[in-house]
Amino acid sequence: MIVEMEKSASEEEIEAVITRIKREKFVARLEKGEERTVVCVLGSNTGGTDTSIFEVLPGVKKVIRIMSPFKLASRDFRKKDTVVKIGDVEIGGQEVVIIAGPCAVESKEQVLSCAELARDLGFKILRGGAFKPRSSPFQFQGLGERGLEILAEAREKTGLPVVTEVTSPEKVSLVAKYADALQIGARNMQNYELLKAAGCAGKPILLKNGIGAKVEELLTAADYLLNCDHCQVVLCERGINTFRNSETRFTLDVSAVPVVKRLSHLPVIVDPSHAAGKFYYVPALARAGIAAGADGLIIEIHPDPKSALCDGSQALTFSDFKRLMPELRKTAEAIGREMSFGKRR
Amino acid sequence: MIVEMEKSASEEEIEAVITRIKREKFVARLEKGEERTVVCVLGSNTGGTDTSIFEVLPGVKKVIRIMSPFKLASRDFRKKDTVVKIGDVEIGGQEVVIIAGPCAVESKEQVLSCAELARDLGFKILRGGAFKPRSSPFQFQGLGERGLEILAEAREKTGLPVVTEVTSPEKVSLVAKYADALQIGARNMQNYELLKAAGCAGKPILLKNGIGAKVEELLTAADYLLNCDHCQVVLCERGINTFRNSETRFTLDVSAVPVVKRLSHLPVIVDPSHAAGKFYYVPALARAGIAAGADGLIIEIHPDPKSALCDGSQALTFSDFKRLMPELRKTAEAIGREMSFGKRR
Amino acid sequence: MIVEMEKSASEEEIEAVITRIKREKFVARLEKGEERTVVCVLGSNTGGTDTSIFEVLPGVKKVIRIMSPFKLASRDFRKKDTVVKIGDVEIGGQEVVIIAGPCAVESKEQVLSCAELARDLGFKILRGGAFKPRSSPFQFQGLGERGLEILAEAREKTGLPVVTEVTSPEKVSLVAKYADALQIGARNMQNYELLKAAGCAGKPILLKNGIGAKVEELLTAADYLLNCDHCQVVLCERGINTFRNSETRFTLDVSAVPVVKRLSHLPVIVDPSHAAGKFYYVPALARAGIAAGADGLIIEIHPDPKSALCDGSQALTFSDFKRLMPELRKTAEAIGREMSFGKRR
Amino acid sequence: MIVEMEKSASEEEIEAVITRIKREKFVARLEKGEERTVVCVLGSNTGGTDTSIFEVLPGVKKVIRIMSPFKLASRDFRKKDTVVKIGDVEIGGQEVVIIAGPCAVESKEQVLSCAELARDLGFKILRGGAFKPRSSPFQFQGLGERGLEILAEAREKTGLPVVTEVTSPEKVSLVAKYADALQIGARNMQNYELLKAAGCAGKPILLKNGIGAKVEELLTAADYLLNCDHCQVVLCERGINTFRNSETRFTLDVSAVPVVKRLSHLPVIVDPSHAAGKFYYVPALARAGIAAGADGLIIEIHPDPKSALCDGSQALTFSDFKRLMPELRKTAEAIGREMSFGKRR
Repeated sequence: MIVEMEKSASEEEIEAVITRIKREKFVARLEKGEERTVVCVLGSNTGGTDTSIFEVLPGVKKVIRIMSPFKLASRDFRKKDTVVKIGDVEIGGQEVVIIAGPCAVESKEQVLSCAELARDLGFKILRGGAFKPRSSPFQFQGLGERGLEILAEAREKTGLPVVTEVTSPEKVSLVAKYADALQIGARNMQNYELLKAAGCAGKPILLKNGIGAKVEELLTAADYLLNCDHCQVVLCERGINTFRNSETRFTLDVSAVPVVKRLSHLPVIVDPSHAAGKFYYVPALARAGIAAGADGLIIEIHPDPKSALCDGSQALTFSDFKRLMPELRKTAEAIGREMSFGKRR
Repeated sequence: MIVEMEKSASEEEIEAVITRIKREKFVARLEKGEERTVVCVLGSNTGGTDTSIFEVLPGVKKVIRIMSPFKLASRDFRKKDTVVKIGDVEIGGQEVVIIAGPCAVESKEQVLSCAELARDLGFKILRGGAFKPRSSPFQFQGLGERGLEILAEAREKTGLPVVTEVTSPEKVSLVAKYADALQIGARNMQNYELLKAAGCAGKPILLKNGIGAKVEELLTAADYLLNCDHCQVVLCERGINTFRNSETRFTLDVSAVPVVKRLSHLPVIVDPSHAAGKFYYVPALARAGIAAGADGLIIEIHPDPKSALCDGSQALTFSDFKRLMPELRKTAEAIGREMSFGKRR
Repeated sequence: MIVEMEKSASEEEIEAVITRIKREKFVARLEKGEERTVVCVLGSNTGGTDTSIFEVLPGVKKVIRIMSPFKLASRDFRKKDTVVKIGDVEIGGQEVVIIAGPCAVESKEQVLSCAELARDLGFKILRGGAFKPRSSPFQFQGLGERGLEILAEAREKTGLPVVTEVTSPEKVSLVAKYADALQIGARNMQNYELLKAAGCAGKPILLKNGIGAKVEELLTAADYLLNCDHCQVVLCERGINTFRNSETRFTLDVSAVPVVKRLSHLPVIVDPSHAAGKFYYVPALARAGIAAGADGLIIEIHPDPKSALCDGSQALTFSDFKRLMPELRKTAEAIGREMSFGKRR
Repeated sequence: MIVEMEKSASEEEIEAVITRIKREKFVARLEKGEERTVVCVLGSNTGGTDTSIFEVLPGVKKVIRIMSPFKLASRDFRKKDTVVKIGDVEIGGQEVVIIAGPCAVESKEQVLSCAELARDLGFKILRGGAFKPRSSPFQFQGLGERGLEILAEAREKTGLPVVTEVTSPEKVSLVAKYADALQIGARNMQNYELLKAAGCAGKPILLKNGIGAKVEELLTAADYLLNCDHCQVVLCERGINTFRNSETRFTLDVSAVPVVKRLSHLPVIVDPSHAAGKFYYVPALARAGIAAGADGLIIEIHPDPKSALCDGSQALTFSDFKRLMPELRKTAEAIGREMSFGKRR
């Protein structure tokens, strides 16, 4: 439930609304925008509560029920697009942002070569997995903290902010020490204990959809993060499990991009690499993601995909990636967005 | 099975291969390209036949088994991209082609106003349904032959070729009398009696994927059409049924575009309107389709969507469509393709 | 819209309601049951019509809007379970009915051996395909009319009624000449021209769900059949396309059985053979179908599956089938149904 | 890779194989059965290792590559069905086991009334959630440790073992203190840090499939648990996300039961309650699960579903449940299994 205040409402009137909400044993969440000030009423039984108990309070303009299961992630709660900052890079603004790097951190050389490529090509954020959630316990599980150190070194050398995955609540503070943004992977989209811990780490979160999750479920999971004070969230569509999967590893649902934009204020990016599963399908999906309106892409690259310890078949080589970048920039411009790296060259 | 001939092979040698194929009770299909000449061996048990009986014949370069269930639609059969002509318009070449028009033909005024829009905006082919396969027998079923006459009149006035759906074998010759291309809808993708009849009508065919069909099943259905002499086929991805459908009517599988391009020589277009189901999601999907490499789009427009007798919620108004066209052209150009209408203006 | 009449309503009053319905350009469908008499109002815009124009007529008890897209197939239209007769065999009554036979009719010997097995084991209806819709045009397509003759001979010898598939409107009368029930296969579930033709053939119809179709779409397709006078329909759940398909060919949705029972008055059977795709998964799915409440099963058997021309991997041998039958009978009895063959032995 | 030893192999020979495996930097897992003794070779690159280095060792009968991604859960590793004990109750043996209880522990009265019902009806294991992973953070999240205490009290009073969900690694030891078996819910099926922690807790684990997970992915997740020494695992099919979901909450894939039985030695049960989502579809799915060969069911019951704090719409009332139990027993008997509670009465 959203209590929208009159523009002229005083601090006391806002405070009185919050007090009334608390008296009903609900949680109040104040959102002051330029356009409007609202107080969101959160709790398990807001639906059973009469709106009139808030409508009668002084300074209240109107009370709106949020019909969707997600509240804080909804457009009802915040009308304006949210822009998330990872390091100095804004996601959700005019510019389309490319995040790239290897699937797994394997060595200092490998990560630094990716970071140097960034300096050349101008992609904006470095990705790389130090803790790798793998389907089988007998697969390579990542370098752990050593991987985080390598990522931090690469940032040092290049100035690129770093996003990396965290896979359990107890590792959140360790990963947050090194990373500029924490990634929650598809398998953990509804790992709520992890969401609660990550949301409070003081870093922006990149939340990927589960392979069996509806867009509405992704947005509701985001509420776990947004429920932490000041938590900033970027959503990521990375493909879903359908009967079409075989030539491609997953089915990229590009319509998730305009759907998220319509239902939510959160920025959304696309992961063409995991969706495709094969490097030769990545460019088409990358371009489609941007054309659909995504705020960015997260792409896997590798100096030598054949020797990759994880998901090598979906990694672009550096030369593939160089060829793709100008296409991405032009696609962004075709829909009135920008990609600054392209201009530099 | 593909029998590839030496470049130097004589007509007699080719003929001898065909005779040998027939002796095995298989069907032979000759494909003479600039690059290579092949004879395709078709039949229910080619897999159980030893390749050596053909390999030993004079003039034979090599024999390749086609591992996919589709044969004539496969890249193994034809290496070069097929370009299909609908009227004067080429699909599958350098240019990205927009097919537009109302879901159903409702009146002469409605269709002519769409055709006039084409003259202004430069889209290339007119669509419109005269025979409408509707989920319920109690919904509007189309104007029938009167609808076909209206489409033909619109072609007369504007020079635009016309594509329209055919829904039963017995109507094929009637529809072919009026239309420049026949559409086989999603519900009839595996209506093989219809495919056989339509394939022999002497008109190019636009074949849409079934909502539960894999890409491989779409390509295998195309074999029914290609099995008719000289039949030309354009494939169309129009969305599939997944658990994600609710905000959107279907899930557009954009990866079907590069997958078709890799596995087949046939052109492929995208239908963003049926996939989206809501007009406000159509532009994002239309752009994504082109960015993924589609050879064209088929889009529903209506002078007054609210009064449409069929699928009004997914039709673009003329002004929405005008706004979208330049974005589509720029997206096509971003990936090195063209859209000529844009240049004219 | 359903106009329910008072029990005391006179013929004239009913007639007056029908006249009024026609005046609105709707179609009226009278359903006289023991419990209640209703007139169903059918047409593309019943939703926009005020119920009061019928409510005020003499003899009218109440007017109910049918909210589902299917009308004649709905429980709102008919409260009581429909029992369909194929030959002398009732489907939808107390007894669970087994339909069995080969996928395709291949020879007289093959079909007669299946029919003799029926005499021994007591299954009730013989199935077999004479016209086979196959994914590829280069696969065995069935014996055609010769196959129908073989089926008719088998009926002659054993007294078993015969169900076989029809694949195009023009073949309906031919197939109806030989068969006791016509099957509409999954690929043709939304081939409306076929549905319209088959519905008028004077034979009961076995309608299978499309592999991408929702239950509601199956029921709406059934309306095309029920819209023909006196057409009797049995539905069949035969599995759907999901991401789970690989070990099994399709995913059997057993919940479709209680869902159909709740939303519709039509009988529903299960096809475990096509769902499983592998003979060793058929028994579990067959039992599950009956346990879920299905009115019958349609199972593929073959005297020698390895030599089958079609779908041999999913056919049960006669000895597998013999072993399964007592389990099926006991499962039927566990839920208070019967299977008479079991008792005979 | 499986190294199968000769029956006559000595302890020293087995030890030598293990040593050799370790020298290759793989992990060895010894499995001594009555029928055969095998050593499983585990590691990320066993596929690249020549089998002959083990084949030449004394006492080795043969070396088999496990082609599936799951190893310890595969039939290749263990031929015999695994029987798991929860308290005194065996799952995976001759008897079909019913686990029942409320979705969430709400009060002592509620849980005790369920436990008393067990004493009357004879179901074998009590379920109830103390830590509830809910889609939205604003829904009831469970009573936490107080809920565990209530469950323990109910066990005390009735002797029923208790299964309850654990949702984060750090809570594992707390939950294990109270519960007889730990449940890993669908959302956490690929929460590998949780799997690793839970697998080492010394309690049997009930692992539910993710709603977007293939059977093969469920089995591969089980490998994380089985990789802990002595960990015992029961799998649970609880429905998947498909385009069919709407009347039912998820689509129960009953074929998962025979598929698991074929590919794995682990017991598998079915959760009809979450699959159905509506109480009136639960009985059909419960019976279908048993008929398909499930080793048990986990069913939600509630003394007063309308007042339930969680998933009330899918809970059976006590009287519904009483009516269902005899049907379940008879279905079990129809396929040659037992359900002892039925006999007692």
